[in-house]
Amino acid sequence: MKMKLHYSPASPFARKVRVFALETGLDRDIEPHAITVSPVNPNSELASDNPLMKVPTLITADGTALFDSRVICEYLDTLHSGRKLFPANGPARWQALRQQALCDGILDAAVLCRYEAAVRPEQFQWSEWRSGQLAKIAAALAALEREAASLEGELTIGSLTAACALSYLDFRLPEMKWRDNVPALAHWFGKLSARPSFHATAPPV
Amino acid sequence: MKMKLHYSPASPFARKVRVFALETGLDRDIEPHAITVSPVNPNSELASDNPLMKVPTLITADGTALFDSRVICEYLDTLHSGRKLFPANGPARWQALRQQALCDGILDAAVLCRYEAAVRPEQFQWSEWRSGQLAKIAAALAALEREAASLEGELTIGSLTAACALSYLDFRLPEMKWRDNVPALAHWFGKLSARPSFHATAPPV
Repeated sequence: MKMKLHYSPASPFARKVRVFALETGLDRDIEPHAITVSPVNPNSELASDNPLMKVPTLITADGTALFDSRVICEYLDTLHSGRKLFPANGPARWQALRQQALCDGILDAAVLCRYEAAVRPEQFQWSEWRSGQLAKIAAALAALEREAASLEGELTIGSLTAACALSYLDFRLPEMKWRDNVPALAHWFGKLSARPSFHATAPPV
Repeated sequence: MKMKLHYSPASPFARKVRVFALETGLDRDIEPHAITVSPVNPNSELASDNPLMKVPTLITADGTALFDSRVICEYLDTLHSGRKLFPANGPARWQALRQQALCDGILDAAVLCRYEAAVRPEQFQWSEWRSGQLAKIAAALAALEREAASLEGELTIGSLTAACALSYLDFRLPEMKWRDNVPALAHWFGKLSARPSFHATAPPV
């Protein structure tokens, strides 16, 4: 039986999994299932597979539901015979997992900004909330700039997540002009985002 | 050199790490450093170690900064010679990681409820935001109830996170009365939370 992936075309966390599947050739074994989710109108269609009602959620070939994006990607990494995107152990593993956590953190902050602006009614929006999240994103970008050299080379779950996070900033927070203060990061992203796996999973215009 | 853990006494994610350290005997090798964090007043003291300015953040013996709680706990699991809390592979690993993700998701939702009620000024609070997060928590509790038997037995990162999540509901959302519809889960939590590692890390009254 094929695996099944609940995703939304605009979700950056779902995109991590979709890029991962394309990069490892596992996309052929996964049936994608597009779905709409919202933090204030939980999608009960998802609840039986993932009570948090979030995407991505993967149904494995034996019917087990897995989430979130970190768990799904690590699981998928055991299913292919190519080079692994999760280094097995040692400093390379902790660097990749820390970078994944850093870039998931950028995404958490950016998604909260998005919900504040696009989901919450205007009269309940609070500018300090947005400012606090944007400060986290700016500090994380500066940190990534300092370690941009470590993103070069073979793709890992760390660099894959970094590229998904930067692309999401272009998609939802273009007014940040994130490239302005991080030239090395911007240069790296330009190369990475040219990969077919990124083109094929670009968010809707 | 000792490791150093930035934590806040009220943080449930930091508590995961503190319980983990006590359960594995690694607390002797970790110097705890209490710190205050807020989503709208990012603590710049933390920024050099963790640009997301969140706890927990661990500084390893060689000076590397690691975050978030998942990455720290998995790293710590490589440093002790006892039984591992992260199953090495196979269905046991995916079950433990999925349960960790489920209970981290409960915590994310509960922390967002907390921020909504205690950080955001009253005139900007939006009841539908809270309702949406509470619906996720309720569905996750119902799912955990159905698999409560799998939480029995030796502690894993999944059951450890479940206990931290349930304790946080007692701490910050007591009005939920989460035990009411989940008797098996409540019974299991009663036993688990009697462990010295949980007593020693209880949130401030």
